Amino acid sequence: MDSIEYEKRTITRGALKYTGKAKQVYTTDDPDILWVHYLDQATALNGKVKETISGKGELNSAISQLLFNYLTGNNIKNHYLHSISKTDELITSLDILPIEVVTRNYASGHFVSKFAATPMQKLTPIVQEFYYKSDALDDPFINDSQILALNYATNDELTKLRAESTIINRHLIDLFRQANIQLIDFKLEFGRTKNGDILLADELSPDNMRLVDIATGNSLDKDVFRKHSGDVTVGYQEVLTRLQQII
Amino acid sequence: MDSIEYEKRTITRGALKYTGKAKQVYTTDDPDILWVHYLDQATALNGKVKETISGKGELNSAISQLLFNYLTGNNIKNHYLHSISKTDELITSLDILPIEVVTRNYASGHFVSKFAATPMQKLTPIVQEFYYKSDALDDPFINDSQILALNYATNDELTKLRAESTIINRHLIDLFRQANIQLIDFKLEFGRTKNGDILLADELSPDNMRLVDIATGNSLDKDVFRKHSGDVTVGYQEVLTRLQQII
Ligand SMILES: Nc1ncnc2c1ncn2[C@@H]1O[C@H](COP(=O)(O)OP(=O)(O)O)[C@@H](O)[C@H]1O
Ligand SMILES: Nc1ncnc2c1ncn2[C@@H]1O[C@H](COP(=O)(O)OP(=O)(O)O)[C@@H](O)[C@H]1O
Ligand SMILES: [Mg+2]
Ligand SMILES: [Mg+2]
Repeated sequence: MDSIEYEKRTITRGALKYTGKAKQVYTTDDPDILWVHYLDQATALNGKVKETISGKGELNSAISQLLFNYLTGNNIKNHYLHSISKTDELITSLDILPIEVVTRNYASGHFVSKFAATPMQKLTPIVQEFYYKSDALDDPFINDSQILALNYATNDELTKLRAESTIINRHLIDLFRQANIQLIDFKLEFGRTKNGDILLADELSPDNMRLVDIATGNSLDKDVFRKHSGDVTVGYQEVLTRLQQII
Repeated sequence: MDSIEYEKRTITRGALKYTGKAKQVYTTDDPDILWVHYLDQATALNGKVKETISGKGELNSAISQLLFNYLTGNNIKNHYLHSISKTDELITSLDILPIEVVTRNYASGHFVSKFAATPMQKLTPIVQEFYYKSDALDDPFINDSQILALNYATNDELTKLRAESTIINRHLIDLFRQANIQLIDFKLEFGRTKNGDILLADELSPDNMRLVDIATGNSLDKDVFRKHSGDVTVGYQEVLTRLQQII
């Protein structure tokens, strides 16, 4: 499929703009709209480990669309526009901020090893971290003054990223709790529209979240892949099924 | 020497409290006062490289005392009390905050490699970084929300550390410029008094600063040791001599 009806007109897919670690992004005949295709690909260690996992693209696309729609319903501005197929969607074309925003409700992963923290320790206040989005530099952890000195974002934008992430965190915690899932941590990306608005972008999937089944304590996210402890799609499918039941 | 007259009484040195990478710290018969001895020791990579450099203790002690006195004259509260000998001094005993505060005026060292920044690029606004003081964890870079969640300091203390470091930076830039020296970056430590005041602590020496001779562009600090490019004490002596000329 390379065109789709959207808001009473036909949007046609154009050239491949970039291939990321999890998605392909295409231009369309509307300069404000991009066409995203979710890949059946999993990576770890910032792309150094790569594997094809059949069905992952569909699952991530479905979960992501469901979560973007949920956030739209809660007045969180985001880039999601329209579903094209099980793996493809239309999004608003943004100037992506080179800052990945990580929010942590409980200690896990790097946070534990870096600070010798207690695994799953509740973090109060919640932890928010910025990483400079650069595969070449391995996404280095960055603080506000470094971001300002290097001109990666403005102070107003950082305030906005923090505030938006805090609200999104609350909404996601609420939703996942209804699905009997604990939201440990997650990574968000944001982008600027032509008129300077900041919208939530990228994807909302278990690739970028740590999710734990409250009943069993099992990981339902990409940690399963990172730790080679099984088939990730089992957990992803579980997340999707539970979310579909409550939304 | 194991006792000294200070404010009309005799202060006597007690037990060795700890041996750090650059100094030994002793208790005294006054619980509020410590006795510091500067060692002829240089370390790099957080202590993994260690070497004896004769004369370094005296130079660091002399530079540190001179800089603490200069800051005292500029109303910066600090732990320095009294000179005992060329290598020893009395300081106020503090509960040291486990946060090292790095201030950067120009890009150098880790900052350059981590962000592919231009060496010696002017940083506007100045960069301020916190590191969690832990040799075991290799002094990890830490942000405000992590410090709060891990209870390493309070928000008021972080505000204070940032504000104090900014003012100290301005005073040090001024002083070094008069000595024809450029202050690239430096690390500070702070501690709490019994009644909750925050004082500047530790040492103010070329071990914890990057200093460049404006005339020649030569390093006058510990980078000479880190890069094995010569005898550090030559640069340290130059710093001391120039400061003595202007103070
Ligand atoms: N709304 C958007 N506009 C433009 N680019 C976007 C948008 N949303 C996401 N992107 C970018 O699409 C790229 C592809 O996604 P992905 O495969 O996850 O890449 P990565 O390898 O960086 O994780 C990423 O660089 C992401 O920042
Ligand atoms: N006023 C003070 N009260 C208590 N401890 C202090 C004070 N000033 C400095 N210290 C501590 O003295 C110790 C010895 O100093 P140093 O040799 O530089 O140690 P390090 O190996 O941590 O760099 C350090 O842990 C430092 O934090
Ligand atoms: Mg991605
Ligand atoms: Mg030290």
